[in-house]
Amino acid sequence: TVKYSKSKATQRNLLLIVADDAGFETSVYNNTVCYTPNLDKLAKRSVVFDRAFTSVSSCSPSRSAILTGLPQHQNGMYGLHQQLHHFNTFDNVQSASKILSDAGIHTGIIGKKHVGPETVYPFDFAQTEENNSILQVGRNITHIKLLVRHFLSEAASRPFFLYVAFHDPHRCGHTNPQYGQFCEKFGNGGSGMGIIEDWKPVQYSQDEVVVPYFTPDTPAARQDIAAQYTTISRLDQGIGLVMSELEIAGYLDNTLVIYTSDNGIPFPSGRTNLYEPGMAVPMMISSPVNRAHWGQRSSVLSSTVDILPTVLEWFRVPYPDYYIFKKGRKVVLTGESLMPLLHGSSTFESQYRVKRLSERLHGPSPLADPVCTNGCVYASHNLHEVTMYYPMRVLRQVRYKLIHNLNYHAPFTIDQDFYLSPTFQDILNRTERGEPTQWYKTLREYYHRPEWELFDVSNDTTEVQNLAYNAEFSAIFKRMQRALNVWQNVTDDPWICSPDGVLENAGNYKKKPQCMPLLDKVVNAKIEL
Amino acid sequence: TVKYSKSKATQRNLLLIVADDAGFETSVYNNTVCYTPNLDKLAKRSVVFDRAFTSVSSCSPSRSAILTGLPQHQNGMYGLHQQLHHFNTFDNVQSASKILSDAGIHTGIIGKKHVGPETVYPFDFAQTEENNSILQVGRNITHIKLLVRHFLSEAASRPFFLYVAFHDPHRCGHTNPQYGQFCEKFGNGGSGMGIIEDWKPVQYSQDEVVVPYFTPDTPAARQDIAAQYTTISRLDQGIGLVMSELEIAGYLDNTLVIYTSDNGIPFPSGRTNLYEPGMAVPMMISSPVNRAHWGQRSSVLSSTVDILPTVLEWFRVPYPDYYIFKKGRKVVLTGESLMPLLHGSSTFESQYRVKRLSERLHGPSPLADPVCTNGCVYASHNLHEVTMYYPMRVLRQVRYKLIHNLNYHAPFTIDQDFYLSPTFQDILNRTERGEPTQWYKTLREYYHRPEWELFDVSNDTTEVQNLAYNAEFSAIFKRMQRALNVWQNVTDDPWICSPDGVLENAGNYKKKPQCMPLLDKVVNAKIEL
Ligand SMILES: [Ca+2]
Ligand SMILES: [Ca+2]
Ligand SMILES: [Mg+2]
Ligand SMILES: [Mg+2]
Repeated sequence: TVKYSKSKATQRNLLLIVADDAGFETSVYNNTVCYTPNLDKLAKRSVVFDRAFTSVSSCSPSRSAILTGLPQHQNGMYGLHQQLHHFNTFDNVQSASKILSDAGIHTGIIGKKHVGPETVYPFDFAQTEENNSILQVGRNITHIKLLVRHFLSEAASRPFFLYVAFHDPHRCGHTNPQYGQFCEKFGNGGSGMGIIEDWKPVQYSQDEVVVPYFTPDTPAARQDIAAQYTTISRLDQGIGLVMSELEIAGYLDNTLVIYTSDNGIPFPSGRTNLYEPGMAVPMMISSPVNRAHWGQRSSVLSSTVDILPTVLEWFRVPYPDYYIFKKGRKVVLTGESLMPLLHGSSTFESQYRVKRLSERLHGPSPLADPVCTNGCVYASHNLHEVTMYYPMRVLRQVRYKLIHNLNYHAPFTIDQDFYLSPTFQDILNRTERGEPTQWYKTLREYYHRPEWELFDVSNDTTEVQNLAYNAEFSAIFKRMQRALNVWQNVTDDPWICSPDGVLENAGNYKKKPQCMPLLDKVVNAKIEL
Repeated sequence: TVKYSKSKATQRNLLLIVADDAGFETSVYNNTVCYTPNLDKLAKRSVVFDRAFTSVSSCSPSRSAILTGLPQHQNGMYGLHQQLHHFNTFDNVQSASKILSDAGIHTGIIGKKHVGPETVYPFDFAQTEENNSILQVGRNITHIKLLVRHFLSEAASRPFFLYVAFHDPHRCGHTNPQYGQFCEKFGNGGSGMGIIEDWKPVQYSQDEVVVPYFTPDTPAARQDIAAQYTTISRLDQGIGLVMSELEIAGYLDNTLVIYTSDNGIPFPSGRTNLYEPGMAVPMMISSPVNRAHWGQRSSVLSSTVDILPTVLEWFRVPYPDYYIFKKGRKVVLTGESLMPLLHGSSTFESQYRVKRLSERLHGPSPLADPVCTNGCVYASHNLHEVTMYYPMRVLRQVRYKLIHNLNYHAPFTIDQDFYLSPTFQDILNRTERGEPTQWYKTLREYYHRPEWELFDVSNDTTEVQNLAYNAEFSAIFKRMQRALNVWQNVTDDPWICSPDGVLENAGNYKKKPQCMPLLDKVVNAKIEL
């Protein structure tokens, strides 16, 4: 592999900034209430992606997908990493920090790591929850600024990859309620709150906030959102400080900056869901060598699994040839570098995903299934907390979105953090009392989801009209099912036969894996007669 | 801790023999067809347990429970360890080999390890699937004999703990069909089968085998059982060889020998189930210092989590004081040493489990809930393959057995191995064709289980009359639910609030954890009206 040892003048660096549970609460994405001057400033020197999606709407799985370029079902991070959840990426998986380290690039992480094992995600410089208070390395923007300064001063003549993983604007009502629902009081100078020197808290009244369609318009939810905005302002100021450190150290002109969020906001249909509020994420990429295109917007469908290929292209480091398991297949990335979009390409290679996948399975072919002609992205969720088994597989193209709920028999699962949120508590209480919830769904609809959900997301933006069982849409439904299956196949999805079959891929089935029928639906259908 | 350095004459050793998926196919347990002279011989110098149960009916979880004394939900081995399943015990957990190693005892494992991480399960001598072919170290009894000889020759003056984990009589139709359904042809001298020098294969005809009540009496199932018997004969001869090595090396008179199986047989209602065919396991303990009681049988309810306390008492090594997680509680074993039963006690301390648990929660109390007056055991299953999420919690007392199916909304899950078994294929095919299955259940009943199952196992030995929803039994049902909950509490079960609630145990709930209602049943009930 390529070894770097260039001088500062010609070196290429990368700064990856990931927010925790941030959505579109910024004027970059047309929210004119939540004040984010630093995100705005970054947007002005970036290409802004209007259709970016996370590969999975859960913290550790998403970070593993960002760093490895592989969906969670392929890299092993099936759910949260910490404590009793205990999920880990497979030992042989190659991640950004490992590949770049091997190529001689100086690597650093500041903030929330939330992935493991260490051997898969090594960083030369690491100030994370593993050796610090997460509040200090993830929310104290002055501390973060100084850590960035420290890292940059050490980088010296080597190119660097710095991953700044803010813990803002994650909820904290569940773990640290004394600091408010979003830790919006932490470091604000109030009694017992401590002071974050560089932070100028911005307050919002519940009257002015923008209530998204997936959140009930109630006083409880509005207060919840107001607290979220204050925390986003800390994130925004933190990003300003980090960018300023980059500039002071003289790296602004040779550093690619990527900003995104690991998953959607912790509101109903958001985090842990793969509806749009959970799956759509902000994304901006600022390339110092493509100034002509700064400020442009891209409507190309992009995914967080595209970040790794982008990083590798930026550093001109190849993705290694390897196998995850002894008898497995060679790993093939299903994401693509977003660099062409930074060079002004507006159409992108829109068929790239399905083309690649199709070639992987059937060899080179001029014809890709037109289901992805205008691009498509995939998502894959298994668990969040270890008790929250709710696997989903998703194909999202420009017009339609297909969701396969594998454990659809059971109610959708609710996490400890979201459960205690004022917004969800209000929904529960109103439902129990039989009062109007002011919500676009009922609790029953939210818990009980059909096996398949097909939405015309370009017309039905709130995803309330399920077309999967509508005969008129059976052609697109079937084609999307096939395309989803191709992707599951290419990414070695252990759930490829779930929930109706058993995957047989050893012994007699080693060369020709098969989904074998369980007859569950047959058996049930017989009973219903 | 105690450090050992005794002479051979006074040292105490332990040999733990674990079979893989073995049941009661031996005259030790009244099967007069399956010929097992070596198990019989061992039984004659053992106390035989007639009511022994595994803590979990799945390979890695069970082995983790045997070695740590903790149920799978407490030690982190929620499912299979190997490859993409990737479950691991928590890093801080103390296992037999770790504790004994720390006490200066020489430790060895020969055969199937199937647990991790290495730091939790260290062995001084390890010949396992991690560094060998599993067929050689788990089924080639000549090779196993020589490995035992090697280990014993190294033990020298130190006391030893040797864990011989046969892979017999596990199925192999799924991975190595060329050797037959149970690898019954492997090493039999046939063409391409190789030869296991010490093995004298015993053949069975399908007419003579004993078909257990939970298996359909069909030609396919009978052939399946006949193959199983042949493999059990290899296990039996292997145990004979291991015992003979022990004798030749002069350790027969100072070695405690424990024999059990990790889980029930791989037939319907067996492995991966917590019905009796999955949960009941053979168990014998041969103590060289209690010859007066050799050949006795014990009807005390015992569990595989009792093995660790028994091992520690034998070696007079205390269980360490420690915490699994930083903010967790001190670990308390819920199993008890079985040594008193080897000394001739027949009643045992039958209330020990509930007494201990109750004391752990409420302090010393003379009154334990009489639900466990005559003893009880618990079981806990989460997954087997990572795609097979079907958590169950079980309380088994002498008369009644309570099963809580946490993901009862979904069908029971079927593993890759069992799916391909001739017995299950026959059930599937007959069901599909509408033919009589000759089985005691229907496929629909097997897949679809109610949330709660309560059986009077002393009268309804086949567990077909569910009393959980019978008002006559509501008193015992409720008391058993409470006792099960106490155990889940003491063992820090993350699923303690599943499936109806969310466990809140941080922030405001740190000192007083609570199950918070999801209203799922309320919401559904409302709809039904
Ligand atoms: Ca997150
Ligand atoms: Ca087993
Ligand atoms: Mg691993
Ligand atoms: Mg660990």
